[in-house]
Amino acid sequence: MVAELRRWVLGQPLATAHVTHEKLSKVKALAVFSSDALSSVAYATEEILIVLVMAGTSALHLSMPIAFLIALLLIIVAASYRQTIHAYPTGGGAYIVSKENLGVYAGLMAGAALLIDYVLTVAVSMAAGVAAITSAIPWLAEHRVLLGVLFISFVTLANLRGIRESSNIFALPTYLFILSILLLISIGWLKYLLFGAAPVVAAYSPEPVQGLTTFLILRAFASGCTALTGIEAISDGVPAFRPPESRNASITLTWMTATLLTMFIGITSLARLYGVIPHEGETVVSQLARATFGGGPFYYMVQATTAMILILAANTSYQDFPRLSSIMARDRFLPRQFANLGDRLVFSNGIIILGVLASLLIIAFDGITHALIPLYAVGVFLSFTLSQSGMVVRLRKLRDRGWQRRAVISGIGAIATCTVLFVFATVKFIQGAWIVIVLIPTLVFAFDRIHRHYDFIATELTLAGFERPREIRHIVLVPVADIHRGVVTALEYAKSICTEVRAVYVDLGVETTRKMRDMWKQWHPDIPLVVLESPYRSVIEPLIEYIDEVKKDENLDVVTVLLPEFVTPHWWQGLLHNQTALLIKGALLFKKGVIVTSVPYHIEGQR
Amino acid sequence: MVAELRRWVLGQPLATAHVTHEKLSKVKALAVFSSDALSSVAYATEEILIVLVMAGTSALHLSMPIAFLIALLLIIVAASYRQTIHAYPTGGGAYIVSKENLGVYAGLMAGAALLIDYVLTVAVSMAAGVAAITSAIPWLAEHRVLLGVLFISFVTLANLRGIRESSNIFALPTYLFILSILLLISIGWLKYLLFGAAPVVAAYSPEPVQGLTTFLILRAFASGCTALTGIEAISDGVPAFRPPESRNASITLTWMTATLLTMFIGITSLARLYGVIPHEGETVVSQLARATFGGGPFYYMVQATTAMILILAANTSYQDFPRLSSIMARDRFLPRQFANLGDRLVFSNGIIILGVLASLLIIAFDGITHALIPLYAVGVFLSFTLSQSGMVVRLRKLRDRGWQRRAVISGIGAIATCTVLFVFATVKFIQGAWIVIVLIPTLVFAFDRIHRHYDFIATELTLAGFERPREIRHIVLVPVADIHRGVVTALEYAKSICTEVRAVYVDLGVETTRKMRDMWKQWHPDIPLVVLESPYRSVIEPLIEYIDEVKKDENLDVVTVLLPEFVTPHWWQGLLHNQTALLIKGALLFKKGVIVTSVPYHIEGQR
Repeated sequence: MVAELRRWVLGQPLATAHVTHEKLSKVKALAVFSSDALSSVAYATEEILIVLVMAGTSALHLSMPIAFLIALLLIIVAASYRQTIHAYPTGGGAYIVSKENLGVYAGLMAGAALLIDYVLTVAVSMAAGVAAITSAIPWLAEHRVLLGVLFISFVTLANLRGIRESSNIFALPTYLFILSILLLISIGWLKYLLFGAAPVVAAYSPEPVQGLTTFLILRAFASGCTALTGIEAISDGVPAFRPPESRNASITLTWMTATLLTMFIGITSLARLYGVIPHEGETVVSQLARATFGGGPFYYMVQATTAMILILAANTSYQDFPRLSSIMARDRFLPRQFANLGDRLVFSNGIIILGVLASLLIIAFDGITHALIPLYAVGVFLSFTLSQSGMVVRLRKLRDRGWQRRAVISGIGAIATCTVLFVFATVKFIQGAWIVIVLIPTLVFAFDRIHRHYDFIATELTLAGFERPREIRHIVLVPVADIHRGVVTALEYAKSICTEVRAVYVDLGVETTRKMRDMWKQWHPDIPLVVLESPYRSVIEPLIEYIDEVKKDENLDVVTVLLPEFVTPHWWQGLLHNQTALLIKGALLFKKGVIVTSVPYHIEGQR
Repeated sequence: MVAELRRWVLGQPLATAHVTHEKLSKVKALAVFSSDALSSVAYATEEILIVLVMAGTSALHLSMPIAFLIALLLIIVAASYRQTIHAYPTGGGAYIVSKENLGVYAGLMAGAALLIDYVLTVAVSMAAGVAAITSAIPWLAEHRVLLGVLFISFVTLANLRGIRESSNIFALPTYLFILSILLLISIGWLKYLLFGAAPVVAAYSPEPVQGLTTFLILRAFASGCTALTGIEAISDGVPAFRPPESRNASITLTWMTATLLTMFIGITSLARLYGVIPHEGETVVSQLARATFGGGPFYYMVQATTAMILILAANTSYQDFPRLSSIMARDRFLPRQFANLGDRLVFSNGIIILGVLASLLIIAFDGITHALIPLYAVGVFLSFTLSQSGMVVRLRKLRDRGWQRRAVISGIGAIATCTVLFVFATVKFIQGAWIVIVLIPTLVFAFDRIHRHYDFIATELTLAGFERPREIRHIVLVPVADIHRGVVTALEYAKSICTEVRAVYVDLGVETTRKMRDMWKQWHPDIPLVVLESPYRSVIEPLIEYIDEVKKDENLDVVTVLLPEFVTPHWWQGLLHNQTALLIKGALLFKKGVIVTSVPYHIEGQR
């Protein structure tokens, strides 16, 4: 029944032969790879304003210079990633680039940063997606945690089914989102230019709670840097492009950067023109759309496409997290289970873990985007820095024609992102960045330990130098408490696997022991019945002592302990039986040279 | 280490030979058996007043007639239990008396009622004991749940150690309690008589919240009936008395009844004289003691001995619950585990269950005595009624000399307690009695099902008519994913238990399968390697299909599946391995004719 439910939810298993690799045109690839990057337009501007407004509404004018600085950073990083696309036509994720060029530990750091980043992408995107919805439908706001978890569950299930044949379902929402935002920006600017003054957005006017310090400006900048998240997606996925892969990927990256820049600067400038003040309950984009379109169908289109692209952005992590964790599991830095391709041709364990972790984040941070942001960019910028530093090292090593120019580009990228990383880690430290700063080395340590463990086991199990064991000397012991069909069945099995079989009985009273001996003579005169004393009424301890004694005295390699058990018609009836067998199994679990086998006797009746 | 902690907390195991039966003098027996009954003095009066005060302070004068009615009921019940003492010198608990005379279901009802009653005795006594302490030390009141649970844990541990040699530790607190209460009553009355008017107790004067209805008076009466709880203890424990057992027990019962009557009427009359009004935060007894002794050492003695006797009262359930549940388990109405005598010669499972259930009640009812009372007396009075009706039936059957007179006494007792039972169930129904009214038939149903199940299993397992199985035809399959020391060890073991061994390998890729075949030829040319196709990458399903196929085609009785597993130096390292073995075990768990055995390979190294 469970199996059927599973089939119904997740679909029929897919044969290995069905693994296909769709090759994407540039237009489709832009849709598939850019949702994460473009969707940050939905919250990046707002994150800048939320920080600035703490110094009063007059500080909001700083949003424009900050936005231009971020745009510059974006161009540098994009230029740097163009190098990676050409250097790694098979896909150059930060883990691979760092590991190959900077060493294993750098690779593990990048891996840890990326895995954390993917989990946060899901949590942040879902929280922001829910905020887009609750801005339009305010009464849903109090259910934001539930909504976030439901969306995550839905995307998790969809990915467990496998949504590989999916480039088409990406294209429409992504282009609709781009269209909506560009429309919003154009109409917004047009209104301003035509009517001279902007429409009033809100009467809300918060008091400044602190002065306009450099620290605050840096915090606003750091918050805005979330606009860069997702920019690396194309360089990870070069093989998915139509040939010439690198060239197409590179062109698509340029398109994506240009689109992202236009939208980010456009929204930020519009927010400035309209004097938008960020507040709980309605997102900045929603305020702008409402002011521009007046709450009609265009307003709802902006909100709906924003929510959709955010959900798609979360979905990209569902491709990346399982893929990276399977690569790391194959490199033996993660438990082997992450490398198993499930029966729907997806790495099911990675998908499930991702969904669970992201849901926990949503719950822990009460579904508030702004609260999650301080955790977000540390991982992203660490992986940027490592990946670009790796490129510099690589270019220096290979010394291809024109390598100096390219190394300078990557070097500038590395320095810029590293600077942002330190700024971010410093100014957001107490608000949550510390969690990630602690987590990354912890994960690196764990990866390392797992790797060492697998190496150690492989060494221990190697057949090189292993003497093949001689013939095994063993006996079979059958603990019995009674004589019934289950016991008789077990004894017959025991006789079939070994020439020497002994039944072992623990003496719990003179009278019952006498009866047992009598019964035994009648039913199994051929098998000796060993009666063990038990002054403390324990069944386990005398048994273990006897096993040790027999094994030592008779110089045996293995003692097989056969436990007669019966299988009841219903599983819950089993709770009323087999308790002693369970205790014996527990006690013998780690005992060397002892093999424990349950011999089930199936009860057939109707009760 | 766990074992050592256990030894330290619970003590060394005790040999079966140490079971002793202390014979009690009447003075000691009164201490051992009466704590439950006498301790109800601590709350019975208060429970009457709490109900009456709802109709305003003027209604409190009704407490005296109600107390006298309860006293009359007490005398009737005690007289009835004297019959039981003489009829059942080996101990006549309600379960035994009802089962013998009224049939199995009546016995099960009594059993259910008693088990519930024992749990509630612990919860109510502990809650009241904590209330005695917090009346003296008010700042502890907010920690009452924690205190209650701590006391229960303490008593549970003490009983797991076994406190059989305990009549001495009972005597002192019990007699100190009796002394304190009698002193309180005497001095209280003396003060009143000497000074004419009673001291003022409290300025507190609650408004009436409802009229003085018959229903309210019945509720007050029902609440006061908790004074009768524990009266049956002596009749359950007749064998513990010195000979002549029945006579001594009977005399002790009379003493106990007289003491209880004196204390209950004394406290109730004093509360009346002093105009005590019940309120949260201080018990009635504490108010009386404070008014009488003025908060000096005598006041603290009253509170301390009250708390102590209540803890002792809880302790009596720790003797009764495990004993009754072991008797019912031996009669196969409860899971067999309840009948196991632990290594400290106590029925450990019963003790643990009792402690857990009572703690849950304390937590669920926020440690408030008054909230637990509505659940309490239903079980008690049901067992009274059943036990006394059973006596009437028995006396009629045996027709000894003078049986009519005795039957009339028991009959009056039965009618009186049955009446109280119905009154109680009606007037306390919505406040909680319904829980017990639902629970009792549920438990009876469960007992019955357990009994039928054990009967059914016994029938299924009987050797009568069982044909001894002929020699077993079987083969051994060893699922392998690789070749390493663990696999080689498993194969050697397989060869030692069966002449026909096959290794089974699931094909997950052409290349790896070819390598495996090559390796196999080198290491195990003597054992055939069966390669199974798996288009959906599942390891489990092809394996199960193969087992079914082999078993059918080759007409085998048993297929033994040997799983090579390795045991890592640390248990948590095991989480990184053996996942497939676990899945295979799960899938084959209930499969007929398949025996699954893990062959452990112990890794010895240092990591």
